[in-house]
Amino acid sequence: MSLLVVGSIALDSIFTPFGETADALGGSAVYFSVAGSLLHPVQVVGVIGHDYPAAELDRLGTRGIDWSGVERAEGESFRWKGKYSYDLQSRETLETRLGVFADFQPKLPERFRSSEFLFLGNIDPELQLGVLDQVHRPTLVVCDTMNYWIQSKKPALLDLLGRVDLLLVNDSEARELSGDWNIHRAGRWILAHGPKRVVIKQGEHGALLIEPSRTFYVPAFPLETVFDPTGAGDAFAGGFMAYLARTRSVSEDNMRRAMVYGATMGSYAVEQFGIRGFDNISLDHVRQRVHLFRDLTHVSLAEAVP
Amino acid sequence: MSLLVVGSIALDSIFTPFGETADALGGSAVYFSVAGSLLHPVQVVGVIGHDYPAAELDRLGTRGIDWSGVERAEGESFRWKGKYSYDLQSRETLETRLGVFADFQPKLPERFRSSEFLFLGNIDPELQLGVLDQVHRPTLVVCDTMNYWIQSKKPALLDLLGRVDLLLVNDSEARELSGDWNIHRAGRWILAHGPKRVVIKQGEHGALLIEPSRTFYVPAFPLETVFDPTGAGDAFAGGFMAYLARTRSVSEDNMRRAMVYGATMGSYAVEQFGIRGFDNISLDHVRQRVHLFRDLTHVSLAEAVP
Repeated sequence: MSLLVVGSIALDSIFTPFGETADALGGSAVYFSVAGSLLHPVQVVGVIGHDYPAAELDRLGTRGIDWSGVERAEGESFRWKGKYSYDLQSRETLETRLGVFADFQPKLPERFRSSEFLFLGNIDPELQLGVLDQVHRPTLVVCDTMNYWIQSKKPALLDLLGRVDLLLVNDSEARELSGDWNIHRAGRWILAHGPKRVVIKQGEHGALLIEPSRTFYVPAFPLETVFDPTGAGDAFAGGFMAYLARTRSVSEDNMRRAMVYGATMGSYAVEQFGIRGFDNISLDHVRQRVHLFRDLTHVSLAEAVP
Repeated sequence: MSLLVVGSIALDSIFTPFGETADALGGSAVYFSVAGSLLHPVQVVGVIGHDYPAAELDRLGTRGIDWSGVERAEGESFRWKGKYSYDLQSRETLETRLGVFADFQPKLPERFRSSEFLFLGNIDPELQLGVLDQVHRPTLVVCDTMNYWIQSKKPALLDLLGRVDLLLVNDSEARELSGDWNIHRAGRWILAHGPKRVVIKQGEHGALLIEPSRTFYVPAFPLETVFDPTGAGDAFAGGFMAYLARTRSVSEDNMRRAMVYGATMGSYAVEQFGIRGFDNISLDHVRQRVHLFRDLTHVSLAEAVP
């Protein structure tokens, strides 16, 4: 089944205690598709400026990413510059230059409109709604958002929530959106506003899948080396959605497996700067790491209550 | 097998966004034994002042707590006063009055010296070492500590680490002790300094059991109502140790089950003020909640990799 992502394509300059990069490939659509394409082909809709290194995107395209929906516009590409604290627990945005992203109006090529799995990356909720109007009958629509839109475009965001199947956000976004600091109540609030499911990412603490009557928890993969948390959430989304597209099922059990694939992709993202963590990763590597998750939470409770 | 805890017995005054308590029963030995006694009898060594409501301890004693090792000294009881932030994520100590706890020198009654499971609650590591000198051949020795001792008594603490089987601390303590912000590297550091295993509690994010070649993760029980985080870590320790004592095994598999019992007891602790969360809890309640943990992380990966 076809998988489509609409999101940002950026040039990131990142400072961590372990080094720095300048103008490296980044943005939600890039992390999503680099991670997801390990499992399933990905179609991308986005915008780049005249200065974007398109040859580098093309090289990634050999993995199964279709960049043909990416528009090249007049002007500079979207740039983000950020600096992480010594323990990578917090980051400061040093500079955001929207460039061509400021006037981005996603237009889906006709051949993308029948995509069955759609991920609406973190962009203006009005644009996310506009994308929804262009697709035919998707099997699963998942969206992300961020605090900026929660504060500035709440009515559009609530409208969007009523039209998506699953909201995938991090814990601070879930708290701000719901106005509730308790993450489980925040999840309930979101379910009451439209989506049938919500995934709440908690960084180094893993992620929750909250459904009306069940909650599933996947831990983060235990890593002794973390270089750069940038893009981990979008890589998680890419693994999650691409696993569902690959296996053609949105059952509860399959959603749980998709969570493990998401967590696996997130773990590769943070092991190197930018998207480099995926450089030498094959599907076999992914399978091996997925199976390591099994032992991480496995406990036999059958004989637990003497 | 007999289970012994040595720790503080306090009167806590706690302010949370949901209310307050004054001079309520608290302290590591109290939380530990109230939680643990749901699974196995607990022997307690500690000290109280002339003003401690001993009748309230006696009432708890009917659950299987042996307070006969608690010394009543001249002077006032240990008092702690603290205030939590609106989201319960941080707390401020408003007042600490050590009282009789300042001169506490744990002396084990002869009948306690053959205890097989020993928990050294968070007290001066020199006193913890003194307790170790009084016990015969315990099957399992677990200790806790806190940032204050890491800063002021590191040599004694390192000496202690060489003599215990398992260190049970929270994440900030593990980080400070090891000097490493990465929690998995911090765990390795601790294993290299003596204990065969380390349990790292992460509050609302659950807890890790780190062993030389495996890591186990138990999430916190998903609670939509949290009133008071005080004592959750000691209740976790009580559930963990009492489960091991009840089942008479320190195998890897049993340690994992004990982690789930610990997390279950921690969840009761936070649902009400002080120890009240345990007021109406029976072993059947515990069993039911333990089994709810199974679904929380259960994922079938057998068919995960088509």
